[in-house]
Amino acid sequence: MAVYTEVSDEALSAFLAAYDIGTAVSFKGIAEGVENSNFLLITTRGQYVLTLYEKRVDPADLPYFLGLMRHLAARGLSCPLPVAAADGALFRPLAGRPAAIATFLPGVWPRRVRNEHCAGVGAALARLHAAGEGFALTRANALGPAGWRPLFERSAARSDEVRAGLGEEIDTALASILAAWPDGLPRGQIHADLFPDNVFFLGDEVSGLIDFYFACTDLLAYDIAVCLNAWCFEPDGSFNVTKARLMLGAYAAERPLLPEEREALPVLAAGAALRFLLTRLYDWLNHPPGAFVTPKDPLEYARKLRFHRAARSARDYGLD
Amino acid sequence: MAVYTEVSDEALSAFLAAYDIGTAVSFKGIAEGVENSNFLLITTRGQYVLTLYEKRVDPADLPYFLGLMRHLAARGLSCPLPVAAADGALFRPLAGRPAAIATFLPGVWPRRVRNEHCAGVGAALARLHAAGEGFALTRANALGPAGWRPLFERSAARSDEVRAGLGEEIDTALASILAAWPDGLPRGQIHADLFPDNVFFLGDEVSGLIDFYFACTDLLAYDIAVCLNAWCFEPDGSFNVTKARLMLGAYAAERPLLPEEREALPVLAAGAALRFLLTRLYDWLNHPPGAFVTPKDPLEYARKLRFHRAARSARDYGLD
Repeated sequence: MAVYTEVSDEALSAFLAAYDIGTAVSFKGIAEGVENSNFLLITTRGQYVLTLYEKRVDPADLPYFLGLMRHLAARGLSCPLPVAAADGALFRPLAGRPAAIATFLPGVWPRRVRNEHCAGVGAALARLHAAGEGFALTRANALGPAGWRPLFERSAARSDEVRAGLGEEIDTALASILAAWPDGLPRGQIHADLFPDNVFFLGDEVSGLIDFYFACTDLLAYDIAVCLNAWCFEPDGSFNVTKARLMLGAYAAERPLLPEEREALPVLAAGAALRFLLTRLYDWLNHPPGAFVTPKDPLEYARKLRFHRAARSARDYGLD
Repeated sequence: MAVYTEVSDEALSAFLAAYDIGTAVSFKGIAEGVENSNFLLITTRGQYVLTLYEKRVDPADLPYFLGLMRHLAARGLSCPLPVAAADGALFRPLAGRPAAIATFLPGVWPRRVRNEHCAGVGAALARLHAAGEGFALTRANALGPAGWRPLFERSAARSDEVRAGLGEEIDTALASILAAWPDGLPRGQIHADLFPDNVFFLGDEVSGLIDFYFACTDLLAYDIAVCLNAWCFEPDGSFNVTKARLMLGAYAAERPLLPEEREALPVLAAGAALRFLLTRLYDWLNHPPGAFVTPKDPLEYARKLRFHRAARSARDYGLD
């Protein structure tokens, strides 16, 4: 949760003048999103979210991210629709940063995940994958398998500060996962970060997906693996196979999984756990003292990684 | 800017069931307000702000704060209207804290204060003072003159860590201000913290006042003195007498100032500067390392205090 950049009312007025969405009636920083600054913007025409892209987002990626959101929304997926300025631009400078306006999405993200949520997110993920077809741009997964070894090397020497033996455990897992990483599975546009705070619900129904700033072009089943990690473990660390079965079943009802995708689930899930372990480990070791954002515990993902490394087949995820 | 307390979607649903305002469509932490946790709540019926009162607000004061807001709103002042639950309660427990729902107020607070803002806030303050008449409850000003000596004593021994000689300067000013503090000026319900982030504008017009959690029963002219400090100094520390003249003129057009109120402006303004100097000094010396909220610079108010101590009459504030 963070608003990093302050926007003056005059700068906002000048910015809005480039759009055809009326003038500001309210403008409040939202305490959500750790990567960018988000503001709820109410104008004389409607409700919007204004995002200022902070340093972790490369402006060169914005045409992909914002274009993908427009592509998905045009195909009926409920996600924020980036609003073009009068000159057609999807982002413009504000307070020294690139900024974009998107439509406001109703819904509340689940603080405690229930079974019904897992079915909803599985179906929504499959619809996202289908809606992504035909999008012309691609973006490599900067946090995909090719990036894990270099990412680990930035933390390797200090890994054992977090827990004795962690570095060796990661090193072994990394070699094993990369050796077994599947080739030739269906690829497409993936969200790659579909955690509960990025999925809005109204009641038990998914009302929309947000935060496409890790989206990329990669294995569709890897996106499922991220969700298994993000949604199907209980706070005590146990894996809830009922949640996994509901998620995978709802996904497969929209897009049937190939046999080779099912077989790859354990290694994909282990890779996804490793990816979050590595970024959390780096953030844990490198956050400035007194940082605004408390880093997340990397060991949560070390435990998830162990679960997936012990899994033998899709059966361990509730599939028959 | 802060959201200190996380509210689960289930706790929110149960809380809203006690009200007659529909169900939640959106619920987002707002990065505003350093004392409490504030959430924008959109329901099937309308837009609201939900506030969780954190430890700095004494629950025993809530009937005064919330009752005053209802009193003011009923008399036409634009401020958040606390919404009563179906059982009539103005606040109820949520996530282990007292919580209240109030109507959403349109407007944007000015990040850079212009002259027109000062006229608007002067008139709004006078309307607040008039609307407060007849409110049955009273609340002593915990941060008024009687509290300044005890507050200073909590920081006195370490004042010079902030700047050499600061402790002696405060000690001298405190004795002088208390000795000259006026008796018998008109009293009433005051806001006591009407800084720019608590005043919303649409264009150059005030659209509403918020954050009544320092409100109390004290000298009306002291509230003006707080505003002189909060609105009429430039970022470089200089006093903008044009802004002060506009503010005082607009105030007096709604409620003429008594001669003794005009005469007391220098000591009232010095007292108001001292009040913010003392709380900022305490927070500066006592904020935990790595705190979420960066403490504000106490020396800004030491400089303002010097200005007011050198002022001789209302003429120094632009009055003839």
